[in-house]
Amino acid sequence: MKYSFENDYSEGACKEILEALIRHNFEQNTGYGLDEHSLNAEKLIRKACEHEDIDVHFITGGTPCNVLAMNLLKPYEAVICADTGHINVHETGAVEHVGKKILSIPNKEGKITPEQIEETVKKHTDEHMVLPRLVFIAQASELGTTYTIDELLKIREVCDRYNLYLYIDGARLGSALVAENMSLKTIADIADLFYIGGTKNGAFIGEAMCIKNPSLKENFRYIIKQNCSMLAKGFVCGIEFEKFFESDLYFRLAQNANAGANELRQILFDHNIPEYVHSKTNQIFAIIEDSLIEEIQKEFKIQIWNKFDENHSIVRFVTSWNISEQNLVDFRNYLDSIIAK
Amino acid sequence: MKYSFENDYSEGACKEILEALIRHNFEQNTGYGLDEHSLNAEKLIRKACEHEDIDVHFITGGTPCNVLAMNLLKPYEAVICADTGHINVHETGAVEHVGKKILSIPNKEGKITPEQIEETVKKHTDEHMVLPRLVFIAQASELGTTYTIDELLKIREVCDRYNLYLYIDGARLGSALVAENMSLKTIADIADLFYIGGTKNGAFIGEAMCIKNPSLKENFRYIIKQNCSMLAKGFVCGIEFEKFFESDLYFRLAQNANAGANELRQILFDHNIPEYVHSKTNQIFAIIEDSLIEEIQKEFKIQIWNKFDENHSIVRFVTSWNISEQNLVDFRNYLDSIIAK
Amino acid sequence: MKYSFENDYSEGACKEILEALIRHNFEQNTGYGLDEHSLNAEKLIRKACEHEDIDVHFITGGTPCNVLAMNLLKPYEAVICADTGHINVHETGAVEHVGKKILSIPNKEGKITPEQIEETVKKHTDEHMVLPRLVFIAQASELGTTYTIDELLKIREVCDRYNLYLYIDGARLGSALVAENMSLKTIADIADLFYIGGTKNGAFIGEAMCIKNPSLKENFRYIIKQNCSMLAKGFVCGIEFEKFFESDLYFRLAQNANAGANELRQILFDHNIPEYVHSKTNQIFAIIEDSLIEEIQKEFKIQIWNKFDENHSIVRFVTSWNISEQNLVDFRNYLDSIIAK
Amino acid sequence: MKYSFENDYSEGACKEILEALIRHNFEQNTGYGLDEHSLNAEKLIRKACEHEDIDVHFITGGTPCNVLAMNLLKPYEAVICADTGHINVHETGAVEHVGKKILSIPNKEGKITPEQIEETVKKHTDEHMVLPRLVFIAQASELGTTYTIDELLKIREVCDRYNLYLYIDGARLGSALVAENMSLKTIADIADLFYIGGTKNGAFIGEAMCIKNPSLKENFRYIIKQNCSMLAKGFVCGIEFEKFFESDLYFRLAQNANAGANELRQILFDHNIPEYVHSKTNQIFAIIEDSLIEEIQKEFKIQIWNKFDENHSIVRFVTSWNISEQNLVDFRNYLDSIIAK
Repeated sequence: MKYSFENDYSEGACKEILEALIRHNFEQNTGYGLDEHSLNAEKLIRKACEHEDIDVHFITGGTPCNVLAMNLLKPYEAVICADTGHINVHETGAVEHVGKKILSIPNKEGKITPEQIEETVKKHTDEHMVLPRLVFIAQASELGTTYTIDELLKIREVCDRYNLYLYIDGARLGSALVAENMSLKTIADIADLFYIGGTKNGAFIGEAMCIKNPSLKENFRYIIKQNCSMLAKGFVCGIEFEKFFESDLYFRLAQNANAGANELRQILFDHNIPEYVHSKTNQIFAIIEDSLIEEIQKEFKIQIWNKFDENHSIVRFVTSWNISEQNLVDFRNYLDSIIAK
Repeated sequence: MKYSFENDYSEGACKEILEALIRHNFEQNTGYGLDEHSLNAEKLIRKACEHEDIDVHFITGGTPCNVLAMNLLKPYEAVICADTGHINVHETGAVEHVGKKILSIPNKEGKITPEQIEETVKKHTDEHMVLPRLVFIAQASELGTTYTIDELLKIREVCDRYNLYLYIDGARLGSALVAENMSLKTIADIADLFYIGGTKNGAFIGEAMCIKNPSLKENFRYIIKQNCSMLAKGFVCGIEFEKFFESDLYFRLAQNANAGANELRQILFDHNIPEYVHSKTNQIFAIIEDSLIEEIQKEFKIQIWNKFDENHSIVRFVTSWNISEQNLVDFRNYLDSIIAK
Repeated sequence: MKYSFENDYSEGACKEILEALIRHNFEQNTGYGLDEHSLNAEKLIRKACEHEDIDVHFITGGTPCNVLAMNLLKPYEAVICADTGHINVHETGAVEHVGKKILSIPNKEGKITPEQIEETVKKHTDEHMVLPRLVFIAQASELGTTYTIDELLKIREVCDRYNLYLYIDGARLGSALVAENMSLKTIADIADLFYIGGTKNGAFIGEAMCIKNPSLKENFRYIIKQNCSMLAKGFVCGIEFEKFFESDLYFRLAQNANAGANELRQILFDHNIPEYVHSKTNQIFAIIEDSLIEEIQKEFKIQIWNKFDENHSIVRFVTSWNISEQNLVDFRNYLDSIIAK
Repeated sequence: MKYSFENDYSEGACKEILEALIRHNFEQNTGYGLDEHSLNAEKLIRKACEHEDIDVHFITGGTPCNVLAMNLLKPYEAVICADTGHINVHETGAVEHVGKKILSIPNKEGKITPEQIEETVKKHTDEHMVLPRLVFIAQASELGTTYTIDELLKIREVCDRYNLYLYIDGARLGSALVAENMSLKTIADIADLFYIGGTKNGAFIGEAMCIKNPSLKENFRYIIKQNCSMLAKGFVCGIEFEKFFESDLYFRLAQNANAGANELRQILFDHNIPEYVHSKTNQIFAIIEDSLIEEIQKEFKIQIWNKFDENHSIVRFVTSWNISEQNLVDFRNYLDSIIAK
């Protein structure tokens, strides 16, 4: 196999993080995320968000972050999200496992609109139905698309109008921010809580859960522990996020993934392979003939997302924070060779 | 601070694991624990257990392992454990969070007896009560004590008699096995499911959940994912456990922790500090005057477990897989100096 | 107010049940449904189903029955139902509250098809998604429509093919059976479990949960008790269902409701008021001008279901087991009078 | 069988309630407890409590009431109760089923003390443990004993000091109030929420859940519906509680049960049968020789609670709201006859 476009968590950690972990390896640190590295990383993230009052907790993964957020709701409160939402499709019912109903609405290229949110709220009129209370969106979305600032502001507005929390899943937040030229501050301004994804952007493990809404902060560490999401060696995440945010490392890694995706888009375009939805981030969904897919899979790992029509499927390509120009040259050359046949 | 006896998860990873992670860092591995390292580590663990048919899953931590096991029960089935059991005291109600009642019984130096288990089962007579179905024990126990082979066999016997699963929490299994000169095979022979603790024995993260009872194996990966316990970069655990079990590394690290504990026991004895319960593993619970505790804490980190009487407290010392002779010499000298005063 | 078409649970109990409750009122009966009346009612229901091996439990209501059924599933197993399904819309997330995900599919006049079920199963391919395991249908459906025998057999067939349980919500089973000229035996032949609704067919309280699939029977009383659904005075339900099934009372009451509905359909037709979906049972959904609705509501209670278009709404009429010819004459005359205006 | 002392829910309803149900049987009432009878019953209960601002909801049973209360807690909040508490022993883990941990403390004749509550709170120090948040007591207790006003006030005081809700399970509240000459107002003054038991005091079904603490009132009907505890024909309970509280009926029925118990205590005393704990309510726990128990059981139904010693068992006698003097004369005569032998 020449290269895997399967996902952006196939490799270990970026070299800056690896070096930091080696450097601090034999220190004795306090457990459970109460160490100096974690505290310092929290400070750095607050600074990057330009919100001094955000609470930051380092969590083992994205599904855990989403589940923790759901634990903030009352038993009869519900979550609004796109039918393509990760929590709705790819988390084995983890949200329902902690007792919360998901009200899914038809996605528009992976996203949802304020109008859809409003309509959902209005349909829930009495105690025989759940009470919509939290809006879940992903930036970037599960289809690689992104919300613009304007779109986010309008969702915030409808949330304010109907007393809804806005939660942003940031599994690929770096890629989205770089693509949209959006700042972390914008996310922190708009969301009640969100997470900054580490796993898919060059960390071994861990995401930074950021809570801005003061009413959601109390006793959050109880929720983390109760939901299997508190790392004994929390300082590992602390060290990782220190590196991410003591320089612009977090964004540089996302930039590399996006640059790779842009080149990949060009390669697909050059070979007349259309995108299924247009994205600007490091996930590309393309429509490819099944016979061509088979050829590609001989040397490159890709993920078949769905059937498109009888002879075509939708294929997901993900470019990693670690992708190199050579990887892309290899792919271009390989496409040239098999399509020429 | 000279040294922390607070726990055995203060440091990063042992150097063999660190080196392996560096070596494989830029490989592209399949996600979610389906990579070659994890598959190989499973094989090595099966061999170490001398049970070719055990299913092995690498999980993010000990609380997750315990919670996953509880998800195997029906809603009305309950868990029997010591009142000092980790699930009963120190997991923020995670077992109840997934709906299961714990039937706690008074510990005998951290352990429970077959007679207590039987008595608990017999008290549960009809559908107005929960149905006891799983026995939870920890080897080593939360007080550092260990079950002998004979004790384990008798618990197995009562489990068989009353149709109970036997689950062994192995957060400090290495230390217990070395202390009791017990083999992994013995554990695998006796338990329905158990986990081999990595985090407290020199790994960055992760435990190896081992399922022997065939009726508990089906769809376990669904349970892992649904309970926030599936790592995207599962290969990190795979690489760690490959190192643990391709040589005797796992046991050597435990041996170092135990040797440190033995020396520490001698130091306490030499200073007339009694143990609260006698253990052979890397946890020591000692009864110390409160004024002396204060002096110790100026240079050494220790954990106050409980009040013992008006002037004394029970203090927990834990020796790490990474403890050195010098650390212990430092402690002996310091005790000499403050007690001499 | 002349009459309420709001629902079929506005009145107390039918006179035969009332008399039986009075007759047995001062007997001392065993609690929790283990009394002679309940045991006898179970026998009578088995006979009516022509299945001697069905387990029957009397439960406090329809939502409880549905929730109990969900407790039979493993944590990661999911339920397939129509988007209009009662469990999906009108039970305040009770199914999710016990941890189960609902996979809702677009209804066809309140019903679902084998093809839709199959498609849903096929989309769930791995452990990152829930595992579809139970199909929920209501006979009659929430829109008053009914499944024919042929439709039920085809759903059974797809359930067998994909290892799915078939659960039939029988809140209005009497009305559906009478309308379709279907026997209880047919339901019992086809379903794994189902309930025979009492509350909406002339009982004070209670439904008869019937479990045919032997693998679902074990310890069901534990589930009832744990889910708040075991009545201390279970003999009340026992006495009710004895009356229902020691004669053809259950079906006579349903027949009265259906006859009322048929006359009501004629009245609407005679006034050019169209049905929203065509049903044969005691629920009628009609499309009525908003101004006319207001007029009707001055004397008759009806439920506005949904907006239909700018000037029309969908209105639900329910005819009760206790409806009289005079009630319908009153409605016809009233409609005549207000439409004439 | 001459008489059953097994429990106080063996018979139907008291004649006043039965007559009212007959009288209102063919009225059309609004469903789900929003009918005129329920609203009126709420008013009457507010008046009886001398608290105009209490919210009253009619619930299907005692276990449901307890479970609803638990749903008011956050996921990591826990309940303190006696080890003999109904929720701890006899509700099949229903509290844990909705995710809450019970912290049980050793009962003192069925009751708990402020000191025990304080000690339990103080042991829970950080986020690795649950957070105690609600104290559960039963008046009368599960052993028939009662809290005095002074004891209740002291428990209230400790609840205030540690930010705990006080919940009073009133399954047999009538019997306790009559026995202690305590008013409903006292209960309402002291508790945050409590329920007034109907099932064990002459109703067919239903308890009146009373919420005084304003912070617990919001959206309670959502919780009722979600937890299988909302009756379609809620007006049945409304009619029952109207009768209970439009006169002193509720207390008269309790008074009859207590008078029967007092006579029964005298009968036992006259035959040298000791009480296991002394109670003043309608539950009596007596220590009886096993051979005598067998004799008694030939004509009277009683419940064996527990073994006392090799030859004796603890037996529970319950006297009903409907017990007659003749029932007690029969029992006295029978005891005379079998003991004379």
